[in-house]
Amino acid sequence: MAVGLGPLPEFFPVRGVRVGIASAGIKKPGRKDIVVFELAEGSQVAGIFTRNQFCAAPVTVTRRHLSEAAPRYLLINTGNANAGTGRKGVVDAEQCCSALAAMAGVSEAAVLPFSTGVIGESLPVVKITGALSAALEGLGEERWGEAAEGIMTTDTLPKGVSRQVVLGGETVTISGISKGAGMIRPNMATMLGFIATDAKVESTLLQTLVSELGEASFNRITIDGDTSTNDACILMATGQSDAPEIGPDSPFLADFRAALEDVFMTLAHAIVRDGEGATKFVTINVSGAETQQEALDVAYTVAHSPLVKTALFASDPNWGRILAAVGRAGVPDLDIDAIEIHLDDVCLVRHGGRAEDYSEARGKAVMSQQEITIYIDLKRGDVHERVWTCDFSHDYVTINADYRT
Amino acid sequence: MAVGLGPLPEFFPVRGVRVGIASAGIKKPGRKDIVVFELAEGSQVAGIFTRNQFCAAPVTVTRRHLSEAAPRYLLINTGNANAGTGRKGVVDAEQCCSALAAMAGVSEAAVLPFSTGVIGESLPVVKITGALSAALEGLGEERWGEAAEGIMTTDTLPKGVSRQVVLGGETVTISGISKGAGMIRPNMATMLGFIATDAKVESTLLQTLVSELGEASFNRITIDGDTSTNDACILMATGQSDAPEIGPDSPFLADFRAALEDVFMTLAHAIVRDGEGATKFVTINVSGAETQQEALDVAYTVAHSPLVKTALFASDPNWGRILAAVGRAGVPDLDIDAIEIHLDDVCLVRHGGRAEDYSEARGKAVMSQQEITIYIDLKRGDVHERVWTCDFSHDYVTINADYRT
Repeated sequence: MAVGLGPLPEFFPVRGVRVGIASAGIKKPGRKDIVVFELAEGSQVAGIFTRNQFCAAPVTVTRRHLSEAAPRYLLINTGNANAGTGRKGVVDAEQCCSALAAMAGVSEAAVLPFSTGVIGESLPVVKITGALSAALEGLGEERWGEAAEGIMTTDTLPKGVSRQVVLGGETVTISGISKGAGMIRPNMATMLGFIATDAKVESTLLQTLVSELGEASFNRITIDGDTSTNDACILMATGQSDAPEIGPDSPFLADFRAALEDVFMTLAHAIVRDGEGATKFVTINVSGAETQQEALDVAYTVAHSPLVKTALFASDPNWGRILAAVGRAGVPDLDIDAIEIHLDDVCLVRHGGRAEDYSEARGKAVMSQQEITIYIDLKRGDVHERVWTCDFSHDYVTINADYRT
Repeated sequence: MAVGLGPLPEFFPVRGVRVGIASAGIKKPGRKDIVVFELAEGSQVAGIFTRNQFCAAPVTVTRRHLSEAAPRYLLINTGNANAGTGRKGVVDAEQCCSALAAMAGVSEAAVLPFSTGVIGESLPVVKITGALSAALEGLGEERWGEAAEGIMTTDTLPKGVSRQVVLGGETVTISGISKGAGMIRPNMATMLGFIATDAKVESTLLQTLVSELGEASFNRITIDGDTSTNDACILMATGQSDAPEIGPDSPFLADFRAALEDVFMTLAHAIVRDGEGATKFVTINVSGAETQQEALDVAYTVAHSPLVKTALFASDPNWGRILAAVGRAGVPDLDIDAIEIHLDDVCLVRHGGRAEDYSEARGKAVMSQQEITIYIDLKRGDVHERVWTCDFSHDYVTINADYRT
């Protein structure tokens, strides 16, 4: 059950981006499990990747290729993560890139590989390379929706968003897709995001944008606190729009950035909304911190607490669990008497205990909503941070206990 | 369902310790919810306490009383944690101590208060003080088993252990009880351990022993990664045995310490065995670390991973989840190719991927056991650490989602 996640929107095509889909039969015969992005010459690509030290082979290869050549193709497969596969996994990923490069007449380093699916099994290279010609033959500008479906694993719904913004009188398009339903399932390793724009973006700025917006969106969501071996978020800019180039001092940067942020946030939140077993979409808003680190420590400690998450599932305004999570977040010298905790506009905690004006009925009313914000004001500084998470339900256990059987 | 946890053992009385039980009707009429320990004059007491900054009022008061006077009484109530109760909670705890002190003819600071139960509700001082005379009148040396039952909250079984060791030809007794079924449930805040011996122990050494053994036992167990507001572990030594006094250079220290460690470990493990919804008792053994911190970071990251825990519940040898948890534990410059991971004697991971000699059948056989050890050898140093945890089942969600209803 996805929380507030509707069907895919209409996608605006992105000039300079064509998408191909094919079926390699990696896990199930007939399933569309290969997606290829083709980028026009001159496109810029920047990405952020998992920080897991057991990072998957395709992440290693994509990073290296990005440093070696201008990317022209992204090759994504589902059904196999090519993670936990040792050195053979790197060779396998390179072989797939090499095959696509030969067909398309580009260098191997111009192909970036991405994999998602089961960990620890060898990549079926022959199946994948056998499906590449079909993917290339079917390349088209209008196939974003199919691509969103093609990168799904156990996602219950495809995830995508498309925006247009007018810069200097010219329309710029941003379209993106993402997948993921647990922050990690190493079996289905895990979060991928692909965002393309036809804006012309100065290359250093593009990396800054993907880092900053990725940090504020994909790096602020958590289903279960785990970090996949395969996570990647890629931002592509083809420069095919007629809008002027955007650099760090561009008068259009603010508008472009706002539209891009909307796309990143929508795609990241969609992953939480489709979180495994999720019945609630929860924003944890920590303010009044002295440092970003302590704001994040508090936010993630609350977001990861199984007790807070099961209380959210139960629509139980169990403020003691939130308070105890704040207290164990490792922030030194917290002034317990100063902290305030709200659920939406209902104050739960003030002066180290239950707020005088709190009533169980008001708490219960907020907790019964599908979308809830927990505000935690530490009252010791000016830093604030937000993270997004979901609740923890019976279905989470069912999904993760039964996945391989 | 408790894993490998039988009925209470026979308790050896501890000379100089008497136990009283009474019913104050705090949460349910007739339930035995008050336990009083009386210690002979000259007893030494040392403790370790929660590191949660929202620590409960009784923890604050006990710490202060320990610094002010020689303890003569411990007053424990269940049904109400007196946590999240602000300054009023401290006054309430002091009133209970004061009432018991007046009846027993000792100073208020000679009474140490402990509470466990619902967070955020005022301590029912009148009910508690009304039950004290019954508790004092019933004091006896043989009531350890009733005390183990009297401090239970949602524990499914009482937890206790009793050992004797001969030192210098004289018998020394150690008896202890504990409670707790989640590492935290702020509602039922949470872990308490009371261990008494009739040995005569030099007072600085007593604090060293409770700190070191508590660190290796109660501070190495985790059900759900949370830290209660009320956790406390108390070690009492009455000195009533005829064995010679034990100091840091005593020839008897090693034997005494070994017996005491057995008591601490048994009580701590009993909490994990009775973990909420637990069906497996799991030891995480990390070796080959450079520092204690990185050994613990790896061990706790694995122990807290909802994905590892649900795989344990499912008896699914899903080594990818263990590997991914190790990879995200924040240890810098891990040599992925060197790490080895075993389930008992079955090697799962070697050279960055699945071990060549691993088979799903062998992995499944180990994972189907009720007691499992996960060995993780980082192969970079000489430090090792162990933590104990349980799996994550449907019943965990049921218990924590339905607790207050």
